[in-house]
Amino acid sequence: MDKTLRVVEQIRRGEVRAAARLIRELDDGVPAARETLKHLYRHSGRAHIVGLTGSPGGGKSTLTDRLIRYLRQEGKTVGVIAVDPTSPFSGGAILGDRIRMQRHATDDGVFIRSLATRGHFGGLSASARAVITVLDAMGKDYILVETVGVGQDEVEIAATAYTTILVTVPGWGDDIQALKAGILEVADILVVNKADREGASRTYQELLQMLELRVPQGKMAWRPPVLLTQAKDNEGIEELLAAVRQHEAYLQGDASAFQAARVAKVRQEFLELLKEGVFRHLVEQLEADGRLAAIIQEILARRTDPYSASELLILELLGPVSQGAPRES
Amino acid sequence: MDKTLRVVEQIRRGEVRAAARLIRELDDGVPAARETLKHLYRHSGRAHIVGLTGSPGGGKSTLTDRLIRYLRQEGKTVGVIAVDPTSPFSGGAILGDRIRMQRHATDDGVFIRSLATRGHFGGLSASARAVITVLDAMGKDYILVETVGVGQDEVEIAATAYTTILVTVPGWGDDIQALKAGILEVADILVVNKADREGASRTYQELLQMLELRVPQGKMAWRPPVLLTQAKDNEGIEELLAAVRQHEAYLQGDASAFQAARVAKVRQEFLELLKEGVFRHLVEQLEADGRLAAIIQEILARRTDPYSASELLILELLGPVSQGAPRES
Repeated sequence: MDKTLRVVEQIRRGEVRAAARLIRELDDGVPAARETLKHLYRHSGRAHIVGLTGSPGGGKSTLTDRLIRYLRQEGKTVGVIAVDPTSPFSGGAILGDRIRMQRHATDDGVFIRSLATRGHFGGLSASARAVITVLDAMGKDYILVETVGVGQDEVEIAATAYTTILVTVPGWGDDIQALKAGILEVADILVVNKADREGASRTYQELLQMLELRVPQGKMAWRPPVLLTQAKDNEGIEELLAAVRQHEAYLQGDASAFQAARVAKVRQEFLELLKEGVFRHLVEQLEADGRLAAIIQEILARRTDPYSASELLILELLGPVSQGAPRES
Repeated sequence: MDKTLRVVEQIRRGEVRAAARLIRELDDGVPAARETLKHLYRHSGRAHIVGLTGSPGGGKSTLTDRLIRYLRQEGKTVGVIAVDPTSPFSGGAILGDRIRMQRHATDDGVFIRSLATRGHFGGLSASARAVITVLDAMGKDYILVETVGVGQDEVEIAATAYTTILVTVPGWGDDIQALKAGILEVADILVVNKADREGASRTYQELLQMLELRVPQGKMAWRPPVLLTQAKDNEGIEELLAAVRQHEAYLQGDASAFQAARVAKVRQEFLELLKEGVFRHLVEQLEADGRLAAIIQEILARRTDPYSASELLILELLGPVSQGAPRES
């Protein structure tokens, strides 16, 4: 416990090495690291978390790099998490972007970590949340969470942010994957990057149209702006940062909207951990007492079926859902 | 119950309309349909299930179309499930392929269904399994499961098959997504389709090399062949079908390998249903008795954290994992 509290204090003071070690240990599934994380969580909740998502090749890393620079010029401290599930296989392009960001690495006010595996939390977004908690407890003012790709995972991660930026490029109208994953529903700010390319204004118009069609999801009062940027040439970055600030101010200004966003975040966070945790615990239990093997044999012999077997087991374990009066505890 | 058994009998006799209605009702979450499915499961397990997966544009639908034709010429009955999560958004290409397959629609020996949504089972692969069960109970000799895309979902679905075919095209060496999703580990047969295109022999060589590097996963005795096809021109299809047969014969010939494959399938099937079912049941329970809201408030107030709260709740619900002696039941 003493050691745990010492690490907690080191990280709260912003010590980079202690934070880096903890993140590594969390990834390795060290039990003590999880205990430290629990303590840190209670000291988190102050940072403004900004998610950046969109198809690969949209220039998200350059945009992130530019945002870091502007935030640093204003004296803000910044944490960056780059989530890249393809990284073990990806070639120079993404790595190059990472290295470009690393030039902030000598700056004590910036802490950058990339995240490639599901790790011990059973999911990329759970792993990302753990790292966010560490950076938040370190006292970073802003935490930028950049995801590569627009799959379900990436959209979920982007949605953990208070402000989610969708980065597109001219011609994005064709991007099926992004639409499929419901990306438009979670975006608070839309960006058409590489806006000097042909088709930028068409993509801009298309995004505006899509926004008009989108189903309001409790974010009714906020109308997501569409911005044009050229991150490479440093154009439109101040406007983007201003939009982030506006969204931040909007959340803070509207107490009920902010509270709703916080409840939704905590709910998702808790349920995600619960889902993985319950399942893992249950499988361990069913394997330890031999029930899983027995059920599989029953199904193989066609004496039962997986639907009946799972329903029966769930009822046995959890009992029926009792509607009505809250249960005593 | 009478009605359930009547529908079961209709489907077992191969009645297309009864099967189509059941699949629709399963998708809509009709409780009676789930009861019917339970009965059908006990009459399933006879069909040989073949999965086809690979990046979009690889010609999987044409390949599937050709396989149907050859199987029908031999008098085999065929069920086809086309899993296409992008379908609400996708344009003409995929739809065109579907329509091409529909020319088998007037053939009573072929039953084709496409699947686009997660439906009421909480996942595409669970939905796909339900449809497989229906087609299997109908008495189809072969069930072809074609997935569009190579995400985690699609690879999981392909892995539910006894024989999984990975369809690539020349130049596939760059396909990061497929590698990421672990597609090579689940493939029993590799195909380079559109083999008249430039780079076919290079892709062929690359696949052979990758196969040599792949970590054996309990399928050690079977060495996946790499085949060249031109589905459009009907070339290589007989060889592909022969490879499917060889793999089928290999599984049936090696009783322990076949049994292991069946156990793994049933295990995955059961655990998938259990995971979704437990979680859904649990959330309902926690919402009904007000505990979820209370936990969220505790976390928001930083009096606890999601890690501690979920661990505590899991212990409370399921008790500790008792290693050692099997538990009495």
